[in-house]
Amino acid sequence: MRHLISMLLQNEAGALARVAGLFASRGYNIESLTVAATHDDEVSRLTLTVYGDDATVEQVVKQSAKLVDVIEIAELTRREHLERELSVVRVEAEAPVLDAYLSRAGGRLLERTGGHAVVEYTGRTDEVDGFIDGLREVGAIADQARSGVAAVERASAVSG
Amino acid sequence: MRHLISMLLQNEAGALARVAGLFASRGYNIESLTVAATHDDEVSRLTLTVYGDDATVEQVVKQSAKLVDVIEIAELTRREHLERELSVVRVEAEAPVLDAYLSRAGGRLLERTGGHAVVEYTGRTDEVDGFIDGLREVGAIADQARSGVAAVERASAVSG
Repeated sequence: MRHLISMLLQNEAGALARVAGLFASRGYNIESLTVAATHDDEVSRLTLTVYGDDATVEQVVKQSAKLVDVIEIAELTRREHLERELSVVRVEAEAPVLDAYLSRAGGRLLERTGGHAVVEYTGRTDEVDGFIDGLREVGAIADQARSGVAAVERASAVSG
Repeated sequence: MRHLISMLLQNEAGALARVAGLFASRGYNIESLTVAATHDDEVSRLTLTVYGDDATVEQVVKQSAKLVDVIEIAELTRREHLERELSVVRVEAEAPVLDAYLSRAGGRLLERTGGHAVVEYTGRTDEVDGFIDGLREVGAIADQARSGVAAVERASAVSG
């Protein structure tokens, strides 16, 4: 099963290495991992998706919570949350065919030079997979980068 | 100076721990880091932004290239590239005020429940900073998650 875990970390070079080391020592299959700034310069947010059974992931969450750099940790999969991922893809395709696909699929054209274009798409991870599969049918993918998952609790989970 | 580094890694739990450990041992200030899937199940792409002088970052790039899990590494800052970051923000704001801001700033409403909304925005890191600063002026930010940077070489750098 896929689990989505979110942590607040002390913004310090060793913090990520310790978290990654803990996951590596357990042989976890991390699907995506993101560390990025928060409004607090001292604190980063780490979001990761990992496959594993509930009991084992729960154990790793407990062990991560004990690491000195981990300020807060939550398994968002257990809460009402909204997750999004960004993909940026360079593709070689006929302009009208690509434009029609983007309009249909909800992607955005970032730039076009000759037959090459860079496009972006945001959605859930499975939606990003679908967007890229569809893109492959209208052109040749030259390069792609995905952002990993960014997630927050849903508005409906917190508004009274 | 800010550097943007992109690597292809063997998709293996220890790979990230070794890269993060290398950066930690040098005391680097990593601004954002993303590991995500590629079209090849065996390979992940790691993208990171780090602050440091040119000579030191170049040295770390060379050392990373020697790690057994690193298939390819490039400092995109030295190439024509296009970088994007995603932010997802839960905000408490008056609906008409928020809608006007999103329309002006180019953000998207993902959901709204009562006075709470979840919005997303994609752009360069400095544009994301600006979007969030502006959002703070029209509402109260309850939670935010950023994806870190996803980057590809520009279409103009590769089309003949």
